[in-house]
Amino acid sequence: MYQGKIANSPMKITDSFWKERMDIVKNQMIPYQWDALNDRLTDTEPSHAIENFRIAAGESDGEFYGMVFQDSDVAKWLEAVAYLLENEPDDKWENTADEVIDLLEKAQGADGYLNTYYTVKEPNRRWTNLRDNHELYCAGHLIEAAVAYYRATGKGKFLNIMIRYADYIDEMFGPEDHKINGYPGHQEIELSLVKLYEVTNNEKYLKLSKFFIDERGKQPHYFDMEKQSRKEGKPYWFSGGHRYSQSHLPVREQETATGHAVRAVYMYSAMADLAAYTNDSSLKETCEKLWNNVTNKQMYLTAGIGSMEYGEAFSFDYDLPNDLSYTETCASIGLIFWAKRMLELEAHHKYADVMERALYNGAISGMDLEGQKFFYVNPLEVVPQEVESRNEKKHVKPVRQKWYGCACCPPNLARLIASIHHYIYTKSNEEIFVHLYMGNETTMEIGGHQVGITQKTNYPWDGKVAIELSPEVDTTLTLALRIPGWAVTAEVKVNGEIIDFQPIMKNGYAFLSRTWKQGDTVKLNLDMPIQRVRAHPAVRHSFGKVALQRGPLVYCLEQVDHGEQLHSIYLPKDADLKAEYERDLLGGIVTLFGEAERVDESEWQDGLYGTSDPEIKPIQLKAIPYYAWCNREPGEVVVWINEKL
Amino acid sequence: MYQGKIANSPMKITDSFWKERMDIVKNQMIPYQWDALNDRLTDTEPSHAIENFRIAAGESDGEFYGMVFQDSDVAKWLEAVAYLLENEPDDKWENTADEVIDLLEKAQGADGYLNTYYTVKEPNRRWTNLRDNHELYCAGHLIEAAVAYYRATGKGKFLNIMIRYADYIDEMFGPEDHKINGYPGHQEIELSLVKLYEVTNNEKYLKLSKFFIDERGKQPHYFDMEKQSRKEGKPYWFSGGHRYSQSHLPVREQETATGHAVRAVYMYSAMADLAAYTNDSSLKETCEKLWNNVTNKQMYLTAGIGSMEYGEAFSFDYDLPNDLSYTETCASIGLIFWAKRMLELEAHHKYADVMERALYNGAISGMDLEGQKFFYVNPLEVVPQEVESRNEKKHVKPVRQKWYGCACCPPNLARLIASIHHYIYTKSNEEIFVHLYMGNETTMEIGGHQVGITQKTNYPWDGKVAIELSPEVDTTLTLALRIPGWAVTAEVKVNGEIIDFQPIMKNGYAFLSRTWKQGDTVKLNLDMPIQRVRAHPAVRHSFGKVALQRGPLVYCLEQVDHGEQLHSIYLPKDADLKAEYERDLLGGIVTLFGEAERVDESEWQDGLYGTSDPEIKPIQLKAIPYYAWCNREPGEVVVWINEKL
Repeated sequence: MYQGKIANSPMKITDSFWKERMDIVKNQMIPYQWDALNDRLTDTEPSHAIENFRIAAGESDGEFYGMVFQDSDVAKWLEAVAYLLENEPDDKWENTADEVIDLLEKAQGADGYLNTYYTVKEPNRRWTNLRDNHELYCAGHLIEAAVAYYRATGKGKFLNIMIRYADYIDEMFGPEDHKINGYPGHQEIELSLVKLYEVTNNEKYLKLSKFFIDERGKQPHYFDMEKQSRKEGKPYWFSGGHRYSQSHLPVREQETATGHAVRAVYMYSAMADLAAYTNDSSLKETCEKLWNNVTNKQMYLTAGIGSMEYGEAFSFDYDLPNDLSYTETCASIGLIFWAKRMLELEAHHKYADVMERALYNGAISGMDLEGQKFFYVNPLEVVPQEVESRNEKKHVKPVRQKWYGCACCPPNLARLIASIHHYIYTKSNEEIFVHLYMGNETTMEIGGHQVGITQKTNYPWDGKVAIELSPEVDTTLTLALRIPGWAVTAEVKVNGEIIDFQPIMKNGYAFLSRTWKQGDTVKLNLDMPIQRVRAHPAVRHSFGKVALQRGPLVYCLEQVDHGEQLHSIYLPKDADLKAEYERDLLGGIVTLFGEAERVDESEWQDGLYGTSDPEIKPIQLKAIPYYAWCNREPGEVVVWINEKL
Repeated sequence: MYQGKIANSPMKITDSFWKERMDIVKNQMIPYQWDALNDRLTDTEPSHAIENFRIAAGESDGEFYGMVFQDSDVAKWLEAVAYLLENEPDDKWENTADEVIDLLEKAQGADGYLNTYYTVKEPNRRWTNLRDNHELYCAGHLIEAAVAYYRATGKGKFLNIMIRYADYIDEMFGPEDHKINGYPGHQEIELSLVKLYEVTNNEKYLKLSKFFIDERGKQPHYFDMEKQSRKEGKPYWFSGGHRYSQSHLPVREQETATGHAVRAVYMYSAMADLAAYTNDSSLKETCEKLWNNVTNKQMYLTAGIGSMEYGEAFSFDYDLPNDLSYTETCASIGLIFWAKRMLELEAHHKYADVMERALYNGAISGMDLEGQKFFYVNPLEVVPQEVESRNEKKHVKPVRQKWYGCACCPPNLARLIASIHHYIYTKSNEEIFVHLYMGNETTMEIGGHQVGITQKTNYPWDGKVAIELSPEVDTTLTLALRIPGWAVTAEVKVNGEIIDFQPIMKNGYAFLSRTWKQGDTVKLNLDMPIQRVRAHPAVRHSFGKVALQRGPLVYCLEQVDHGEQLHSIYLPKDADLKAEYERDLLGGIVTLFGEAERVDESEWQDGLYGTSDPEIKPIQLKAIPYYAWCNREPGEVVVWINEKL
């Protein structure tokens, strides 16, 4: 059942793809976001997030400014710094983080309370609007950051600040009559309390997390009662009501993903955590049901989720419009969080496949190659003129932006990438699961002995992976290699000898069980043909179309390579496509080339409507990885290409 | 140049298609709308329109209720009654109309002013918000109604009321310094003043109409100055600013249709009128330019216009999404008004083709076959679950509604259908143009003699038309028969003798010039094959698809005939389609049948995404005229069908 937590062993990422991105986080995003949090950026909306803490700490005068959840931007930034420090020391950012932590300490109330919005703006209104005002959400992000910082540095100050706050929250919330029987409008604290439990071993945090999950959606509805207490007359803005915050039903009765996508996957993550730690099979089943619904009915090919701008929300099964979607960067990141926890519950390639799909596509499409501009919304089809002219697409930006007033996505990307090493392996007793292929060096303890592991690969550009094991002493363990769902053929060799892995496959992992000795080498060769992917026929918006995929990467066509009106391109069924590595393009990518066809608009003989046949001309197709789009010139993009049967 | 006004000769519609609809107007819509205007309907939003007049007349106490343009609903209803009286006498409705007219007289101010909103609600704020508050718009509709009522009944009371009001408006508005140099936010009075000029021969009304058109869009902008006078701080709600009301530029500088579609076509109609009456070639050229833009770049196959809900507006060239459009019934009706006036400027089949397209498709789709329920929005693709779940489609209703709070469309349809006889012919000197084919009997004066004309046809179900001329004395005249753009082959016979009409074709009309004698018969036979229509390749939303058309009718597929997920149907290029008249279906229609193909969802082997080939199965296709959709069961509808190349 419980397959063990992601290894928190010392780990060095050596992967060319991800190390480059970690360096971007370190050298670009962390400094850039630090400037943003301190309002030193020009031409962007001010953040005021650090200033809010200064005001709360009494170090500065002024008014709170920003979103009610502005504190969480600082938290995510601190968490990202912590993960970077796990990878390699950095005095400058550690010192800066320590200064922020000192500031947090000063901003904290004597009772442990720590939230700049309420402390500065509405000191007497704490906990009066759990539904909308993100107090517990901000607490959760700060707890996550504190746990990460403690793990990375061993320093206890930040953790103790947050323990004080968590203890205060625990005094305020719970099933007891004298406590508030409510729960957050934006889930987040639930998963952070599990992390706090992991480092403190104090079960009360687990219990509080479970309370928030168990209480959610019960009748009479807490948010209704709270609203009545506030004497609020207006109907709730979201016409789906409590679906928005997944509190329309007790969580165990929920069968389809609904409402705000980020809220949903943060909650599902905590539910998976609790299912593991409390051995709650009903919660596990609910997680599996919801996982199947999201990934089999409501997920874009890029692992983007949330097909509606209204509520940044899920809509309904198979409703996946490519141009109107929200597909928020944060939602794909949250899906990765959830996938990781589902893997911890049960190692199954279906979780790792989606995790990988989100990592290489819907999540990192949120940033440019320099880590300085960001998409909040990641649709699979953008026509700039539509986005500029049509109101229902105003949420879609045709180019990445420097910063957002609601700046949740950039720091969320920073903390994800900085912690990428948390997603590679899980360990359980004598099993090491390899979920992701990327270059790294680590050491794990198995049966009381240290086992060094070195992974080398040129992933995602090719599927060759070499894993060297270096146990201190000969050690019996299972190395379970994920064979990705996209892999049509795979070859596994141990010390040069081909292994027939079909008989030792379980849930998509090849279980290599043996006594390993120093220098044993496993080679995995995943064939990476160009794949033509189709969507389930019920997905109306991708019907009759194909997308190109190679390995974990989803490809797209850009205007810069094809001119405008990408919709007029047809990919013939027998088109011969080739993959080629281009070192100098977009930081080095494998490009897909081939002959395709296109309706020749200049040959159209009729007016707006007519009965003549469209003329078709051959063209050269060039597809690039979706994550890299809009790094050359702004213009149209399309993932789903018309298929010519 | 000026081809003469639509003949206002006595006319009897005998056409089975249109007479049935006129009877629906008379027996259903007029009584139903009368009940609506008097708040006698249950389960619908109250109209309060008659009550507003009662309050303004001092006959009732209470507050104004409804839209600021509520008066126009009464006006359109009166206008529809007038047109019905033109066709045949009806004491009941004439008496009722006379009572309403008495009420209007009582509601009119001593100075001639007549607007219930301002009279009741803001008596001291007349003309302070021309941009938003529809005063001149309501005046325009009342003038149109008065002219129609005078023409139908010869009674002068209503006309005199409106002459008093128009005279008052003429005193208030104009280029002179002491007058208001403004113009309406919603165009309408411009075209009504031309009608008033037509019955009164008083050029000041023409001049006032021309003033409104000429002044529009000049800088400094009247609406900006007016806004400043109101000390209004907020930015204008429509992000396109003055484009919304086509006042972003002086009208002669406008080259593409933009903004609110109904406003646009009402304005273009007035411009065409003025171009004719004032021989203004710059205005005529502008009309032609705008006509070409609308009909060659921004019009749906159904002659729906306005592809955006935001602003109920045009968007940009070739941007014609089938599911998100506004395509308001009123906008197609306005396009018919404009087409009629373009035909009066120059008889060209391109105007009549669009007029016919709008009449048989985008306009009458706005009502059900009983004339009791109405669509405001007429998209070419509806999936009920999308409409119910997705906010950006909330303007689309999956079924026709009984009445609307903003009830512009139902009475607009009533007045259009009741006046259908105005659209068949134009007459100029010795030319009679036949623009529309429908059964009717009329008499026209040519060279001082009466010429009886009888048209018989089973249009739109077949293309055989018989026209019998009965001049009092042998009369030399040209009968110019429109050969519709959709007609691939046509045969013209005069008294049984086939005419080679190609040499006598001009602008799509066959000019039959001869001395006609009593009983001469012209037979036109337009072949009506089933046509597979494609959209210009730049129309991304209809790319790779075909629509079925037969004669003037655009066809659609409905869920009731095919199950849900209409998007999964393919029409093979060589599919054999047959047309068959079904007497008992939907009031009697020609249905299109044939073999098509469909992706068999039940055979799909993958999950949400996969590389397997979709399985295709043969199905029977059944297409019905678009106007008749949603008269059996609610469900999906689609006009554009995937084409299998």
